[in-house]
Amino acid sequence: MTTTATTARERMLLAKEASRSVGLLSDTAKRDALEAIARGIESATGEIVAANAEDLERGRSAGLSVALQDRLRLDEPRVASLAAAVREVAELPDPVGRVLDTRTLANGVALTKVAVPFGVVGSIYEARPNVTVDIAALALRSGNAVVLRGGTAAERTNAALVRAMRGALAEQGIDPEAIQTVDDFGREGARELMQARGIVDVLVPRGSAQLIETVVTESSVPVIETGAGVVHIVLDSTARLDWARDIVVNAKTQRPSVCNSVETVLVVKDAAPRLVPPVVEALRGSGVTVHGDETVSSLATDVVPATDEDWSTEYLSLDIAMRVVDDLDAALDHIRRYSTHHTESIITDDPAHAERFLAEVDSAVVMANASTRFTDGGEFGFGAEVGISTQKLHARGPMGLSELTSTKWLARGVGQVRD
Amino acid sequence: MTTTATTARERMLLAKEASRSVGLLSDTAKRDALEAIARGIESATGEIVAANAEDLERGRSAGLSVALQDRLRLDEPRVASLAAAVREVAELPDPVGRVLDTRTLANGVALTKVAVPFGVVGSIYEARPNVTVDIAALALRSGNAVVLRGGTAAERTNAALVRAMRGALAEQGIDPEAIQTVDDFGREGARELMQARGIVDVLVPRGSAQLIETVVTESSVPVIETGAGVVHIVLDSTARLDWARDIVVNAKTQRPSVCNSVETVLVVKDAAPRLVPPVVEALRGSGVTVHGDETVSSLATDVVPATDEDWSTEYLSLDIAMRVVDDLDAALDHIRRYSTHHTESIITDDPAHAERFLAEVDSAVVMANASTRFTDGGEFGFGAEVGISTQKLHARGPMGLSELTSTKWLARGVGQVRD
Repeated sequence: MTTTATTARERMLLAKEASRSVGLLSDTAKRDALEAIARGIESATGEIVAANAEDLERGRSAGLSVALQDRLRLDEPRVASLAAAVREVAELPDPVGRVLDTRTLANGVALTKVAVPFGVVGSIYEARPNVTVDIAALALRSGNAVVLRGGTAAERTNAALVRAMRGALAEQGIDPEAIQTVDDFGREGARELMQARGIVDVLVPRGSAQLIETVVTESSVPVIETGAGVVHIVLDSTARLDWARDIVVNAKTQRPSVCNSVETVLVVKDAAPRLVPPVVEALRGSGVTVHGDETVSSLATDVVPATDEDWSTEYLSLDIAMRVVDDLDAALDHIRRYSTHHTESIITDDPAHAERFLAEVDSAVVMANASTRFTDGGEFGFGAEVGISTQKLHARGPMGLSELTSTKWLARGVGQVRD
Repeated sequence: MTTTATTARERMLLAKEASRSVGLLSDTAKRDALEAIARGIESATGEIVAANAEDLERGRSAGLSVALQDRLRLDEPRVASLAAAVREVAELPDPVGRVLDTRTLANGVALTKVAVPFGVVGSIYEARPNVTVDIAALALRSGNAVVLRGGTAAERTNAALVRAMRGALAEQGIDPEAIQTVDDFGREGARELMQARGIVDVLVPRGSAQLIETVVTESSVPVIETGAGVVHIVLDSTARLDWARDIVVNAKTQRPSVCNSVETVLVVKDAAPRLVPPVVEALRGSGVTVHGDETVSSLATDVVPATDEDWSTEYLSLDIAMRVVDDLDAALDHIRRYSTHHTESIITDDPAHAERFLAEVDSAVVMANASTRFTDGGEFGFGAEVGISTQKLHARGPMGLSELTSTKWLARGVGQVRD
């Protein structure tokens, strides 16, 4: 089901118009819509895989790296898992209509604060076709229309996915204009989306630090900043060796390419001789390259000398920076300087140090004695994840469906006026 | 107590640094700080009134209107009321540290979502010296440092107020750099404040629609948009005349200069002959000029013909626009087109129409049978008002102290790693 709109702005206006009816859909109607989308994606598997093959062919000719080709690839099992993900979102509780506060004024006016959809959610992301389906499903489940702008490398795949999803909406009697893509307008589409203040209510960028920075800087639409994680683990004087070693190795190697993986380990000086050699050895045993300062290099072998740049690097690979600091204060200073305010953890047996760290570190998630890999909507029990907000406005940390809603006050009176 | 910083950026960095200790202050320490500020303002009354006299003299020479001079004026009773307002904020409950959610993962990691201060709150506003004190008190009560940029017409008054407040903080052993003004850097100060992303955590503009538009457009710091109110009241077919008349007159005349006063009345056609004549007469009896469409003019006397511009005008004066519409759908269409999403109310005796209006109007506060003047932090029982948010991100409608906080997830484990 393709749209008749011929400009990015027209499509966004159609999404705005559609958001009115989508915002009023019942829980059941939204669930049925997502089930129809899942079926629609399954029925269109052939078309989607064929479109994806064209994108892949174009990517190969353009010299797209093997890793990016893999990220872009949709085969039949992957299409099936897209549909399954939509069904999971369908099963989540409806975040719209929740009563968040009630008050009765002295004069009897009854106030109710309820959760309402934002209206139109925009997303700018890279060439991961799964994001196209994820964001559309999450937006619709929370009663929003959606305007998508994925990477041009996935343009045909995204077009096929959007066509299947729009067809499913139409089949359910829901305005298909609730799902829009502006992929085919290239950079201009992204620019118009970022400037659509008053039409698009919130913009969620997903992807590299550079993509997010661009959106934050250029957008006049309110943005929820997600993602970049220069994540720290502090090994305190009293850290247990087994916890220190297991948590650092887990936080680095369990899935190195994601934002909640650790990038820098700070070891408090008096624990360095005890902890650095076995932790470095364990990391190396897991294939990790350690970029260490002079003290680390003096305590362990095969350490690459760290430069200042390492402290602000989000490797997203089997690399880790390690530095020895004088004390907890010095660790907090380092974090204040280099953290991206995503997740930091301290390994300590001193409850006062743990509580001080939890209180003073200014990040979305602050941990004591746990792996930073737990910063995740699924792990937190949200059932789905819109992204991980690293800003302080509206949402902070893993965002579930309820973070795609705003609020509205309803006031019911019987003729009251203000004195 | 004056600062040593010589640039706007240096001052903002000092505020950021101060926010670390201010954010950790206890409820009692913050209350004591506000009490000290109230006393400090009282002790400095002579200095403040003298500084204000210089601003007023400068304003008179520059041809400042009598209304603006009055808004700027601080005499002894007004200074006393500033101090009293600070004491009221001191008595409000501490919004920091509230536990907003708790979860325990299957592996035993304990999660707690707590309210934390934003860090540094910025505000750009016009030449109302009371805002200088209001915002500083609200920011400090919620554990934030504050950077103020008031109108240049109030520069000396603001400087005297800020000096008194900083002195009070120092006297309490609190870092006085937590209160900063960038007034003396003129437009450049405002520009630097709007670009201080990463230093200033949130910016709250207060003032005219134009000021707010400028801040929203030019700021890279996240903004909470407040204020502009093209507020509508719909008189439905079944509206009771007494409610219609009393609510429209109250919403227009009780305080015409504020954002929650009504600007446009939409009358459903079949009720127009019954409602328009007495409502217009009551408005005229209260000194209101009615700008009406042709139907309104044909039903009542002394109506000024309305032009299209009237539908989007926020008069903030004893003027009101009135239009007859075909039905509730037409009223909703008009509101969709012209509303600033602040407050709208319907007067109706039809419960289905009331509920439809409440569900479909996309504004911060939507009312049935009540005066729009109730959209107010004080009326809502918040005890203080930071402003009225007309955006959907983070806060919507009247903002209390808790809207000046963000959140943080704390995770406490015993060595857990992710499978």
